[in-house]
Amino acid sequence: MIEVEVKYKISCDEIEVLEKKLEKLGFKLVKSGVEKDTYFNSPFRDFRKSDEALRVRESDECYLTYKGKKIDKKTKTREELNVRIENAEVVKKILLKLGFYPVKEVIKFRKIYEKNNIFVCLDKVNGIGCFVEVEMDVENKENVGEATKKIESLIADLGIKGESITESYLEMLLKKFRSGL
Amino acid sequence: MIEVEVKYKISCDEIEVLEKKLEKLGFKLVKSGVEKDTYFNSPFRDFRKSDEALRVRESDECYLTYKGKKIDKKTKTREELNVRIENAEVVKKILLKLGFYPVKEVIKFRKIYEKNNIFVCLDKVNGIGCFVEVEMDVENKENVGEATKKIESLIADLGIKGESITESYLEMLLKKFRSGL
Repeated sequence: MIEVEVKYKISCDEIEVLEKKLEKLGFKLVKSGVEKDTYFNSPFRDFRKSDEALRVRESDECYLTYKGKKIDKKTKTREELNVRIENAEVVKKILLKLGFYPVKEVIKFRKIYEKNNIFVCLDKVNGIGCFVEVEMDVENKENVGEATKKIESLIADLGIKGESITESYLEMLLKKFRSGL
Repeated sequence: MIEVEVKYKISCDEIEVLEKKLEKLGFKLVKSGVEKDTYFNSPFRDFRKSDEALRVRESDECYLTYKGKKIDKKTKTREELNVRIENAEVVKKILLKLGFYPVKEVIKFRKIYEKNNIFVCLDKVNGIGCFVEVEMDVENKENVGEATKKIESLIADLGIKGESITESYLEMLLKKFRSGL
């Protein structure tokens, strides 16, 4: 599975406006709640340099996710392997035993809207503010272009302006943490 | 969780006899089926030397399991972290991406009997024959002695003789594979 994704910084006041626009466009709210993500780094390959990510997500359901390096600079397109797990605590303990170590926790309140397999996440992320992420999952590289076009068209329909961000929430939080803000 | 376990080699003809004995002692059959285990080794710490194990089990349900080194020589007592996973294939792919590599598959037909949290596994293991494993999970090291006594008493009741085996099925299969038999 390849994840095609764009992300924009928005003001938190815009969230309500975007929700109304999404509903007008026929999007449905499919999920709403807190997600607590714990990111791990590897003992023998620095994931910050290799641009990989290993994450345990705790929400209503729990997931283990691996993300490969980005294969497109403009969008955040990358390979993603995602599996539901029964118990996040046990998986975190196993990762620690295997030598992986936790880097940072990312906690956000997320609302997810969906239409025709396009997912729009409205995120309020602890410590760094509000963002909108638009995402499609495609089977192989040949479908990346088409998905990117659909996403760009929706971004225009929603009236979102400015440059898309390729930095992850984790990277933003680490940068903030290091600069001591 | 600490797993206290003893294992004996038996002739495959004995399995039926042991089943009858277990039923007479009040044990109930709780599970019966094929288990396919894939063992992985680490890219930076040889689990054969560190006496650890990382396993993906595929059966009716799938599990990811880490086992720490043995803390008792006679029994196979060791720390165990076990978590149910939704999809074994995805977890195997994630392990490969993280640098772990599959060592060997162990396929067995297993019948599990239980009474008072003592589990008896009657195993027919592809390539190496039949075994009985008696196992109890305890919360901490202080309870290992008591669990060991209960297990030894059951072994005597079942009329199982000979030396217990601390080698895992994986080690036995690797030894057989290396000797070219």
